[in-house]
Amino acid sequence: MFEKLDLTKKTDDKTFEKEMAPLQVEIGVLTRPLWEHRVPIIIVVEGWNASGITMVISELIQHIDPRGFSLHSIGSPNDEERAHPFLWRFFTKIPAKGRIAIFARSWYSRSLAEQVSGIDWKSGMKSSIATINSFERQLADDGAIILKFFLHISKEEQKQRLDERERNLLTSWMITKGDWDFHHHYDSYLPVIEEFIGETDKPYAPWTIVEATDSNYTRLKVYATVVKRLKKHLDRIESGGKQEGKNNGKTDITKPPKTAVKRKSAAPVAYSKPEYESHLARCQEKVRDIQYLLYKRKIPLIIVYEGWDAAGKGGNIMRLVRQMNPRGYDVVSITRPDQTELDHHYLWRFYQRFPKAGHITIFDRSWYGRVLVERVEGYCTAAEWKQAYQEINEMEQAYVQSGGGLIKFWLEVSKDEQLRRFQDRQEDPLKQWKITDEDWRNRGKWNEYEEAVEEMLARTSTPEAPWTIVESDDKYYARLKTLQTMIGYGGQLFR
Amino acid sequence: MFEKLDLTKKTDDKTFEKEMAPLQVEIGVLTRPLWEHRVPIIIVVEGWNASGITMVISELIQHIDPRGFSLHSIGSPNDEERAHPFLWRFFTKIPAKGRIAIFARSWYSRSLAEQVSGIDWKSGMKSSIATINSFERQLADDGAIILKFFLHISKEEQKQRLDERERNLLTSWMITKGDWDFHHHYDSYLPVIEEFIGETDKPYAPWTIVEATDSNYTRLKVYATVVKRLKKHLDRIESGGKQEGKNNGKTDITKPPKTAVKRKSAAPVAYSKPEYESHLARCQEKVRDIQYLLYKRKIPLIIVYEGWDAAGKGGNIMRLVRQMNPRGYDVVSITRPDQTELDHHYLWRFYQRFPKAGHITIFDRSWYGRVLVERVEGYCTAAEWKQAYQEINEMEQAYVQSGGGLIKFWLEVSKDEQLRRFQDRQEDPLKQWKITDEDWRNRGKWNEYEEAVEEMLARTSTPEAPWTIVESDDKYYARLKTLQTMIGYGGQLFR
Repeated sequence: MFEKLDLTKKTDDKTFEKEMAPLQVEIGVLTRPLWEHRVPIIIVVEGWNASGITMVISELIQHIDPRGFSLHSIGSPNDEERAHPFLWRFFTKIPAKGRIAIFARSWYSRSLAEQVSGIDWKSGMKSSIATINSFERQLADDGAIILKFFLHISKEEQKQRLDERERNLLTSWMITKGDWDFHHHYDSYLPVIEEFIGETDKPYAPWTIVEATDSNYTRLKVYATVVKRLKKHLDRIESGGKQEGKNNGKTDITKPPKTAVKRKSAAPVAYSKPEYESHLARCQEKVRDIQYLLYKRKIPLIIVYEGWDAAGKGGNIMRLVRQMNPRGYDVVSITRPDQTELDHHYLWRFYQRFPKAGHITIFDRSWYGRVLVERVEGYCTAAEWKQAYQEINEMEQAYVQSGGGLIKFWLEVSKDEQLRRFQDRQEDPLKQWKITDEDWRNRGKWNEYEEAVEEMLARTSTPEAPWTIVESDDKYYARLKTLQTMIGYGGQLFR
Repeated sequence: MFEKLDLTKKTDDKTFEKEMAPLQVEIGVLTRPLWEHRVPIIIVVEGWNASGITMVISELIQHIDPRGFSLHSIGSPNDEERAHPFLWRFFTKIPAKGRIAIFARSWYSRSLAEQVSGIDWKSGMKSSIATINSFERQLADDGAIILKFFLHISKEEQKQRLDERERNLLTSWMITKGDWDFHHHYDSYLPVIEEFIGETDKPYAPWTIVEATDSNYTRLKVYATVVKRLKKHLDRIESGGKQEGKNNGKTDITKPPKTAVKRKSAAPVAYSKPEYESHLARCQEKVRDIQYLLYKRKIPLIIVYEGWDAAGKGGNIMRLVRQMNPRGYDVVSITRPDQTELDHHYLWRFYQRFPKAGHITIFDRSWYGRVLVERVEGYCTAAEWKQAYQEINEMEQAYVQSGGGLIKFWLEVSKDEQLRRFQDRQEDPLKQWKITDEDWRNRGKWNEYEEAVEEMLARTSTPEAPWTIVESDDKYYARLKTLQTMIGYGGQLFR
């Protein structure tokens, strides 16, 4: 595509001013109702070094209320970012509903710099493209407008600009050896960038390639593209039509799930108390050793606990962490989202809590709430929970592929055993706080929950992230099984 | 104090188990009502290397619900933390109301490592102690229970333990050259630590020095101290008494403020439009140069905008940033706090937004809301806003002393000019969204606001962080004055 571009395109000052003025008014007029409709807007500006990324953004924000947008300048990752999976630093920066996030460079530059390298760069590229496409599709499905620009200049033009900046005292220190290295490899990068752009140019997140030789032409083209796209989106919303991308539920929910996961609540083995205690102590010590090895090898580990009310999640977690070094793990209890969390994509709040390299995060309930409680209680639309299966699978795959460990437990109890535990709690003054009216209400919807659980297990048991069913009618058995599962995971890793 | 300690103290296993059992029950019983009373709890565990900090914490959390506490392990700062003022990484980690934060090492170890060094270490220490004391006092004033432990072992005991860990394959990699360096300087650190502890041992945040040779004795003493303190605090709350520290309003509000700051709204000079425009363009360019220099020298800058409704804050900010590189500044608009923010000390949410080294953050309204809108509208108690003056002064001082730049603008308009602007807005369909019923209600309380403004200006104009009054009846003058103030600040820095 690049060879067809006319890099000599120009706009004279008079035309620029004439055409820019109405656009500047229009952008102010457009952003307000989009904010009221709670539409998140993502603008990505990429391009060659010295192609004018900062200039374009300066122009763009001139007439946007500075309180309405955030600008993220994406350079080399810092320690914290390096210790997390690739998407983490981007997912945590997505805009809240109604806000604008502008990215000066983005996941594209970082993919090229961090993931597409070495002998195996072609496969790195393929996996980068898949990760990015699902990331952007998820945001678009959630109602976001995504605009992506690539500022294109010729190798000669780039050389001139780098030379010029080096001559200027105020800017010379900004030009690094890396900039020149990149310049010398312009011709080898060109086809890679072209392929990258081609493969990520989607209706819900289109690229605009901008002939960026002339600054008037460049700014005007970007501005006009943004205004046009926002206008189109707003028109569609205001005419009551379906929002672009919003909730289009791309998951093919009619296809029968590949895996049927069998739930069982009865323990296949019964342990006596002394047996249990001696197994427990030995397992807990092994788990501590695994924790040290994870830390030493800088592997992050997520452990997800899901299960029926009173299945014993809390007690199980306490036994799992009993001998762990408390500096290396976190237990995150997931409850109702707060307003800031509701203002973002529902996966956003979980990304915030992802473990860094060498650490363990235990989620007591998790993102699966979307397809369980939110589905059953109607806290989200059917389209939303239906598309969540794919979103969750993609998130877990990207995380595992980036080197993270993931263990998912479903704690199964029978309906009778749950009843016994509820009654127990009600009668014991020390345990009464554990049982609420909501627990009884949930129990009343056992069948609806059961349907949701079965579909969840079937649709989200993937090779990368299988579910482990923990038979939990017998607490001894359940506790030992989670410990043993973690030991098995450790054994696999360190063989 | 250290020389009087008996480091041979021991507890045998039987006594340990007998005395520990009731404490373990009690901690579970105590943390629940404290959570209901929304009391934040901060537990700091410090001590020599290998003194057993992790062991103590492991014991402590065994019987606390893992969902109720966060553990923060404080080591060397990462990039992000290094780019912020010293207190930032700690203030952002304070617990929400009702939660427990446990610090494995803390601002104490980091002060010693980062601030108390070089030839001038005595003055570094003095300033560290002042910073820490005001930090802890602020948290206690907000209702927090603060417990601090120092685990003390002899130099010989430390050597034995380090040797032992080095011999163990699983732990040997954790012992670094730094640990041994520190060990060899044990005798020179001892008096410094003693002084540090002595100077920061306060009724609202007392130290407990633990003879940490024997692990049973150590764990039991820490546990018993925690239980005793929580119990005392809870008893006081439940007997309806004043909470320890809570809202004791240490600021001496009866003392007349030192500085009276004269507010003026009329511009002393009138600029014609062409004059204004040419000054504006020149000033904006200079501000851009200052921004580059700040970036190059890694100085963070905070610019606070406060002022009457319709004083022109928004338009003023837009002119200030007009030529700045958008990658280097953020405009943060402060509105009502959300629930998570309300659950923390009121300064917490501002710390989150502090600029990192080389960046500029412009606060469109700020922490001064506490002594303005929150005071006038009764969103906080009188004790709370009264103590806020001192808290704010301390926060600003600590930030400036750590090398940050701070400019505070008060935009003053006359009551008549405000009325004209309100009416203007009401009549202009494009500006109507800017004016709400609330603006009119606030105007109705002009006198109460005026009293609050005057007291704020007088009490928070400090040598480190003076207010600049911007006469804003004339917008041209006001805009040029903020730009010129920033240029003046830059000139001072780069002389």
